[in-house]
This record gives sequence, C-alpha cells and structure tokens, in this order.
Amino acid sequence: MSASSAFGRLRIVLSRTSHPGNIGAAARAMKTMGLGRLVLVTPSSFPDPVAQARASGADDILEKACVVASLEEALEGTVFSAAVTGRRREWSVPPRTVREAMPELLAAAAQGEVALVFGTETSGLTNEEVSLCTCPVTIPADPAFPSLNLGAAVQILCYEARMALLNPVSAEAPAGELATFEEIEGFHRHLLDAMTASGFYDPNNPKRLLPRVRRLFGRVRLEREEINILRGILGALERKPD
Amino acid sequence: MSASSAFGRLRIVLSRTSHPGNIGAAARAMKTMGLGRLVLVTPSSFPDPVAQARASGADDILEKACVVASLEEALEGTVFSAAVTGRRREWSVPPRTVREAMPELLAAAAQGEVALVFGTETSGLTNEEVSLCTCPVTIPADPAFPSLNLGAAVQILCYEARMALLNPVSAEAPAGELATFEEIEGFHRHLLDAMTASGFYDPNNPKRLLPRVRRLFGRVRLEREEINILRGILGALERKPD
Repeated sequence: MSASSAFGRLRIVLSRTSHPGNIGAAARAMKTMGLGRLVLVTPSSFPDPVAQARASGADDILEKACVVASLEEALEGTVFSAAVTGRRREWSVPPRTVREAMPELLAAAAQGEVALVFGTETSGLTNEEVSLCTCPVTIPADPAFPSLNLGAAVQILCYEARMALLNPVSAEAPAGELATFEEIEGFHRHLLDAMTASGFYDPNNPKRLLPRVRRLFGRVRLEREEINILRGILGALERKPD
Repeated sequence: MSASSAFGRLRIVLSRTSHPGNIGAAARAMKTMGLGRLVLVTPSSFPDPVAQARASGADDILEKACVVASLEEALEGTVFSAAVTGRRREWSVPPRTVREAMPELLAAAAQGEVALVFGTETSGLTNEEVSLCTCPVTIPADPAFPSLNLGAAVQILCYEARMALLNPVSAEAPAGELATFEEIEGFHRHLLDAMTASGFYDPNNPKRLLPRVRRLFGRVRLEREEINILRGILGALERKPD
C-alpha cells in the first residue's frame, strides 16, 4: 500500500482534553507530519477560538475533527490502537517504546484503520481506556520529569509515525485478517456473560479477573477467525446441557 | 563517557525568540528528555511570567538559562553545533535529518561541548547563523506544511538526542582532536584577511565567495591540528616577499 493511504488510515484520538489550546497544538503537530484525522472524546471545550489560534494554519484539521461520546466510539472500525501512556500499569502488558511499536502499527494499517490514543493533560489515560486499546506505548522520557505537554507528545508520536513511514522497517505482517475493535469487544462481552452466568465471575467480588483476562488476550493480536473460534467455544459451553 | 556527561555537554540555543511562551515550552521539552542547559540569544522578553507558566515545572532550567548577545557568544567553546533548519539553502551543505546527525553529535560530545541551535518562530535561522554552525539538520516534516511550533521542534530534537543516547549507534569517532568554534572562526577571519589583502576577495564585490568557502570547510570536521596547518600556510603566504 502507498505511504499516503497508510497515513489516511491513522487517526489521532484525544480523550477528555481539558485545554482547547492543546487540541490546537495537536492539530498543528499532526499537520506538520502529514496526518489529518483527529477524533476528540468529550473535550472540555470544542470548538474554541483558543484551539483555532494554537492550530495556526491547521484549522482544516479542527474543522473536520469528530467529537464522540466515548473511547469505544472513537475506536470503532480500528484493527490496531496504541494507548500512549507514561507509566507502567499493574496487570497491563508492559509498554513498548513508540519507536518499537510503530512498524507494527503501520503493518496493521495495511489491513485497516489504526489509532494513537492520548489521555488527559494531568492524569493521562485511565486503566479502562488502556485496556480498550491493542497495546500500550510509551515515550522514554526522563523518569525524573516525564511530564510531556500533550501537544508535544502528539508531535513526537506523529513524527515517529512519519519517520517509520519514510523509512519502513519490516514488521512481521499479521498472518490472518486482524479482528476489529468491535469484534474484540464483542468477544470480551460474550466471555464476561459466560463467566458471569457460569458463576466463575462474581460482579460483587470482581478481584483482578477482568484486567487479567484483558492482559492475556491483549498480548496476542487476535484475528477475525480466532474470534470466531473463541466465541464458538463459548457458545457451545453455554449451550452445554447440565 | 557516561550518558549523563554527554548530556551535560549539550546546550540548546534559541536565537532571537519572539514569544516567551516558546522559551517556557522549550525548557519543559528539554527537561522531559533529561537536558538542562539553555542559552538564549537576544530573546524579545526574558525572564517573563509567560515563559514561567509554560515551563510548568521546568523553572530551574529557566533560572539557570544564559542570555547572550550573539550566536557567536552562544557557541563559544563548542566543538560541534547543529543548526536546525526547515529548508535547503543555496551554498550550504545539504541538511541531514536529525536522526542521521545525532550519532555524530554524541560522538563529538565525548570530546567537548556541543549545541543544537534554533532560529525564530517565523523565519528560522539566517544564512549567516547557519554558516556559524558545524552542519545543518532538518526535521523531515510534510513539505506541504512544515511549520513546526518552536517548542515542538525542540521537543523532537531533545527526544532524538535522548533516544540516541539510550540506544547508541556507533558513529565514526573523530580521528584527532576537534577544533573549537573559536578556532574555526579564527581561521575564517585569518583567511578573509589574507584573501582581502591579496586582492582575491573584494569586499565591494563579494559575490558568493565567502559562503562557498564556508561550505567547503563546513563539509570537513576541522581538527585543531588542521587549523594550525591552514593558518601556518596562510601566515607563510602573507609574509612571502613580493
């Protein structure tokens, strides 16, 4: 696939951004690297003249930005999404660096839509948001002062995406057709229902079961066929006569 | 040499910055990547509460920043300086990408002080400023919209420096002792005097002679010994009986 079509499939998702100036800075950062698709999950204020001012020339990206009500909605149709996170989280897959993860993101873009996901200015992404993404990635900042400005973080990610696109490193291409975000979430809902109905999962005493399940399936890149197999097994077990 | 000592020898130079907010953003970007030495050439306004606000936690870098009157002064004592530039300039060495140039910068830092040099928000560095630096480097932005915010450009350069430091790629080490900025400038002044006195260079009809000479010597990394040889030749020619 051509470079431009891979880039056309990459969306930048900003979740719950507090300061409209950072949305403008993100738009400008995207445009300098040739990216154009911005998705905003419940921003505090948008559209906003402050965003417009900071975009300084990237107004077209703000104009066609999508505002959505949830991260689930922002990830619809994606086959790969990277959660940009500053810290290692309990029970999550350990984050790879942005540079390490980029070839895989571009390889996935050959199959479908992909996303880079950023959290709020003060606290980043929640654990729940990270668990909705395919994998966590991190910018290897100085541990003594890892507090990157949101616009600066978007700039680095878009820069790395562009560098990876201009100088492709071969990433292992997925063997089969990758499952989409909706298919993976559909499987997780199915599994949750089955675990609950069978009594294995007690919603009143959840412990760490769900994050551990997410972590397990988060380490493989589930293919559509595999989702069908897993859901087939679940369905068969649910129907099993007692 | 240790990673931290290489970083201790790297200064970020901002020339003629118009907006104090960008100075603050640069300080924050530096600190996230473990860098601390900021040199400001005739900033429009510094210190300034706007810089303080945008630094958000990197105030220590602003407090110990040096303000100087010229780029020459900012580069004193350096053995390598990279001019960050957005465009190819006539008569200058073609810029390499930031990523290509970084191993050489870190190799030079094993010998002495090094610098990354940024121009103004609207027009970047002048040709004269670029010619004072060892080499030009560029961020491979989208040619259709290459206008990076100054703070964002500083963020990318500091990030690339950190990545190069964390994952060293072997660069050819200079064979001899690198000449300092002052030694190179001393040679250029000596050469100019000799060319003028000999009638080869006419200040009233300069044409492109000086930039071409800069370009020629800019392509080699002059060593101290070589400067001595070149100045020895010049001195001998100047003394030559007519």
